Parts: sequence; structure tokens; C-alpha cells
Amino acid sequence: MTATRVSGAGMTRFEAASDRSLLELATAAADDALADAGYATTDVTSIHVGNALAEALGTQTGIANAVTASLGAEGVRADRIENTSASGASAVHRGVEAVASGGSSVALVVGVEKMSVAETADVTESMSRLVHDREYVQGLTLPSFAGLAASAYLDRYGVPREALAAVAVKNHANAVHNPVAQFRKRISVADALESPLVADPLRLYDCCPMTDGAAALVLSRERGVRVASTASATGTHAVADRADPLAIESVRIAGERLFDGTNLSPRDVDVACVHDAFTVLELLELEELGFYDRGAAWEATLEGETRLDGELPVNPGGGLKARGHPLGATGVSQLVELTWQLRGDLPDERQVPGAETGFAINVAGFGNNSVCTLLQA
Amino acid sequence: MTATRVSGAGMTRFEAASDRSLLELATAAADDALADAGYATTDVTSIHVGNALAEALGTQTGIANAVTASLGAEGVRADRIENTSASGASAVHRGVEAVASGGSSVALVVGVEKMSVAETADVTESMSRLVHDREYVQGLTLPSFAGLAASAYLDRYGVPREALAAVAVKNHANAVHNPVAQFRKRISVADALESPLVADPLRLYDCCPMTDGAAALVLSRERGVRVASTASATGTHAVADRADPLAIESVRIAGERLFDGTNLSPRDVDVACVHDAFTVLELLELEELGFYDRGAAWEATLEGETRLDGELPVNPGGGLKARGHPLGATGVSQLVELTWQLRGDLPDERQVPGAETGFAINVAGFGNNSVCTLLQA
Repeated sequence: MTATRVSGAGMTRFEAASDRSLLELATAAADDALADAGYATTDVTSIHVGNALAEALGTQTGIANAVTASLGAEGVRADRIENTSASGASAVHRGVEAVASGGSSVALVVGVEKMSVAETADVTESMSRLVHDREYVQGLTLPSFAGLAASAYLDRYGVPREALAAVAVKNHANAVHNPVAQFRKRISVADALESPLVADPLRLYDCCPMTDGAAALVLSRERGVRVASTASATGTHAVADRADPLAIESVRIAGERLFDGTNLSPRDVDVACVHDAFTVLELLELEELGFYDRGAAWEATLEGETRLDGELPVNPGGGLKARGHPLGATGVSQLVELTWQLRGDLPDERQVPGAETGFAINVAGFGNNSVCTLLQA
Repeated sequence: MTATRVSGAGMTRFEAASDRSLLELATAAADDALADAGYATTDVTSIHVGNALAEALGTQTGIANAVTASLGAEGVRADRIENTSASGASAVHRGVEAVASGGSSVALVVGVEKMSVAETADVTESMSRLVHDREYVQGLTLPSFAGLAASAYLDRYGVPREALAAVAVKNHANAVHNPVAQFRKRISVADALESPLVADPLRLYDCCPMTDGAAALVLSRERGVRVASTASATGTHAVADRADPLAIESVRIAGERLFDGTNLSPRDVDVACVHDAFTVLELLELEELGFYDRGAAWEATLEGETRLDGELPVNPGGGLKARGHPLGATGVSQLVELTWQLRGDLPDERQVPGAETGFAINVAGFGNNSVCTLLQA
């Protein structure tokens, strides 16, 4: 569908508080991706920076210019793409369009976030300003929406609470083998169920952490994994307007658009990275996207189908839950993971054998905007 | 060069403090552009929001989603492009690439800013965080850089102080006839020279104001003014690293790239919108872009060459100085003005007769990033 390829991929380690600055993180990931692609900085013809919060947190204005300077790439065209927690994937899509339109021959996409500069409450507050009158002023935050959705999911389908925990347990298990993951620590269902309450019924281990990190891709027409399709969609803006609190319209529409015009369907996907900012979201997205029927993803998860050795490995790098969720970097890091998987670059303990088609979804807000990408070996 | 056309253009009035909210401004401009294009909201296939400060000022997170909802366009793909004061033109360029790549058939670009929610000092502070270690912590702001550049310009070329004032006088005169301009007030050279000092030698009438407003374009392949070329470039990031304080590399490179691959040169331009955030910048940009030799733009200005009835009408809508400078809206509003000029839509007192080729430059920071666009009737 697009003639664009991922020619190089790289990322920093994701961690709770990096001793590197925002710009050092971005530069390290970019250099890594360029080295992987075999391109020099002087080959780059456009820079697309995905970042959600540097400006809101008062760290950096005009981050695209600062990243370009930090890379020693002054002269190259550059801008920033912001789409809250989906800023990373949106930046990748703008890079793909730059290459596909002929506007750029070698596009460097860098997603970066340094969240440790702020208190968790400040980040949560900033992220909650999406729907000002109807959500922010009511005190509604992303964790509270996730808690409400989780309650509804458990109730509607008679789901045991352990099914949510199973998502976290799986993603933590995957991260153990991922050297760039924030939490390389196996957890048990009991650990998850006994962790502190965040937004009933969700507990600490149902929620992604605050993370510092950066990820980068080099896009060109020359070589690498093929960008088979990109698609995104906004959805109902105020969560209260959703007819069904478990239906996330933006996810469904973006997923349908992604496969439209390709000869592929969800059944062809060998490995998927979904936006598990909260455990319940992994289940809801897998259902909304058609990987599972409604109300069926929890049982598939409990049965191990989404494990690394299952039929559809989901979040092999640990997901947002355990790899970490540096907002603007996440969507890029999902595609870095898929690139590694589709090239067969990874050691046996975390390689999905023979993976040829990879899917990723990066979600903004509580499903306000979904950004999907399909890569093929 | 691109197959993309400006099929519709619209904008709100620019004013010091609008009684409309950020989202109301964006929606009004978008509806205006869609009506002008003859498209319905349901025809739109992508939304590109240019905004610099809503997040930094704590007004709105994820503005692209909020604008989409406010337009009743939920479902359409949307994201925000940020490039400080050049966010508007960068958003237009991403819309052009969306159309040119086949990713979108009808792209709606909305630039918007509501600056009246903050104190001028807070905006200036936020804008100064571009180069944190070497400028922000030193207390260097955009007006201070402009003052230094103005001093150097006056000194190097033996320019009378009146030449700077002449830029403001011209742009104010143009705005008198522009119903959407912030300042529809003629000023004299004496008014400019006697206005309060801001950053020596620059006075109040050398500086753009704080503004609320929005502007929008509808882009498609179907009909309208042709986007002949788009080009942008970063430049030296820290101003202190510039070998010549009067040379703005990003402006030069973006300008060269813009004309490369077209059969056009600056000599073919019939009307230009340049980024006169400070009077001296209008002169420096006209020289850097090759419209005038170095050190020659001031005399041309004094001689009236850049007036509406001159050889090269510059900022016929009043420029940033008098139309106003709502950061994320400015670059879009320049292209709204050019669209009107190239279509011959305007009343005689402000129409550039027979204009066929229009040029615009929108600049981020103090020349950190320049974004140029060429339109043709």
C-alpha cells in the first residue's frame, strides 16, 4: 500500500528516571536507528519528532528544533507531531507520508519523553485536559476511566478478576527477556491482585508506569521491513458520549481502515503490539480490532493464546505495562519491536518464530484517537 | 511540483482578546474554509491542527482530538503539528503531504491560538525555552534577539532608524483595509519612533502583538489555487552560534529549496507574506530570500517598493505586525491571504492587481526553523 520501508530501528532503555536529558535520549535513539539503517546523519532529509509532554511540563519548547540541533542535523526540515499518548505512531505516519509523497527520501522519526521531570499527579492532570468541561473539571482521569471500563468488562462477560492480572503477568514475563524494558521482573497473579488499588478494580500492576525513554525509526524506499499500511481515526471525544462504554470507536475504525485496501486481515497477523496502558485495554482493543470476538479476549489470554508461544503473541517486548510508557516514544517503540521481530533479529527466548506480519496500535487519551500500523517482512 | 490545491480558505478576525474559546475559534475558521471550498465536514478525510501554546499554557491537551470533536468530525484522522511560531505553515505542509501521498483526499488544516489566556511575560517565557541552557537560563528572549539584530542592521548598513518604522507604517496601512486584522489603524513614522521602548532600538510598533485567532485551509487535488512548492529548513539552533548575526540560515535554505525544482525564482513572485514578528525581520528575510540584495531591503521599503502599489507588495494583509500573530494560526493565515489575492477576491483597496504567484514564509523561534510555501493562481 505504501512504498515506504523501515530501514533502521533503535531505542534507548526505558527506565523510571534516566540520567540522560530529554535531548540526550532522543539523540541516542536516533543515532542507534541511523547506525542500524547504515545511514549517516547527513543522509537524513526530514525529522519527525513525536513528543507529548515536554512543552506542557515546561521542559522544552520547539523540541523538533532542539532535537535536530542535538543530532548535528541543522538544515534538515523538522517538526513535532503531538497526539498525546499516540504522538509516537502519529509521527511515524507523518514520516511515511513524507517519504510516500516524495517530500523526503530518508525520514528520521524520533519519539521521546522524559516523564521523571514531573510528579505523576502533574502528568495525570495534564493528560486529563483532553475534554476540559466534561471530564477535567469533573476530576475524571485516565485511570478512573480505565477502572470504570474494567468493572463493566468483568460484569458484562462474567470475567474472573484473574483475567486482567493475566495480561500483566504475561507482559511482565515478556519483558524479562527484553534488555530495554523498564521492568524485567516476573510477577505472579497473586502479586498483581495484591498490589495497591489505583482505580477499583484496577491495581498498580494493571497500570503502565511513568517512563523516560526514546525510540527511533529510519524510513526510506530503499531497504528494510515494508510499511504495508497505516491508518488512524479519532473517536468519540467525551467518554460519556459513548453508547457502549466498552466500545472504542476509534480503535475499530482505525483497524478497519488499516486492512482496507490490503489483502490482509487480522488473521494474517503473526505478532501484535497493542496499547495496554491498562490491562483491560489490551483485551478491549484485541476484541475491537477483530482479533477476538467481543468478550472472548480474556479467556484467550487465560489460556495463553497471547503469550510469546501462543497463537497470537501480543506485546512480546513487554507492552506499555512492562517495557514502559514514555508517551511520545511508545508508538515508535512498538514499531522498533515489530521491526526486530520481523527481521528475526531477536534471541530465541523472545523471538516470535517466523513472524512475517506485525500489527501495532497506539492510542491517545482514553480511545480518543487510534493509530494503527502494519509491517511486513 | 505538488498536485495539491488550496480548495478553500477561511479565518476568524484576529483580535487581542476574543470572546470565543480556543475551540470555537478553530471551528469557526474551519467551517469558513469548508464553506468556501464547497465541501461538507463529512467530506474531510484528515485534520491537521497547527497550534503552539495551548498545552504549554495549560488550556488544552490533545487539541487535534478536541478540534475534531468540536467540528463534529469524529472518525476523521487528526493530529497536531507543533513548530513554535511556524506551527501553522508546518501543519499546512503536512496536509499537502497527506494529499500528495494519497493518504487523504480532502485535508482540513486549522491553525489556532488563544494567547489572551496568559500574560505576555508567560508567553515570552514559554517561547524562550527553545535553547534552554544557552538562551533561556541567560534570560534571552525573542525581543532581545530582535533588538540585537536591529542594532547590527542599522549599524552595518548605515540605516536610518526610520527605515524600521517604515515597515510598521506600511503593514499598519495595509491592515486598515483588512476586516480580519487586529489593528485597523494607520500609524505614522513619528508614532512608531515615539512608542515605548521594548528592546533597544526596537519599540512597541516594531513588535507583533499577542493575538487570538484561527485560520483554515482545505486542501485537495480537485480545485483551487495550486500549491506550487513547499519547503522548510532548520537553521543554527543557538543564535550565538551564528557566524553572522544578520544571516538566518534556515530562511536562506528553505527559500532555496522552495524554488529548486520549479521553474520559478523570487523575481516571479507577485505578492509575499513574510514573518515580520519584528520589523527588522521583514528586511532580513527579504534579503536572505533573494528578493533584495543584502543591505538593500530597507531602502526599497523607504522608497515604497513593498507597499501594496509597489513592485513587490509585502504583507498586504498587515503582516504579523498589524493583522496580528496568533502563533499557530499565523502561517495558515498567510496562505489564506495569498489565496484571496491569487483568486482576485479582494476589494480594490487591498487587491494586488493580477497577482499570479504568491510566496509565504513562517518562521519558528528566532530563525530556528523556516517554512516556505509558493502558491500559484
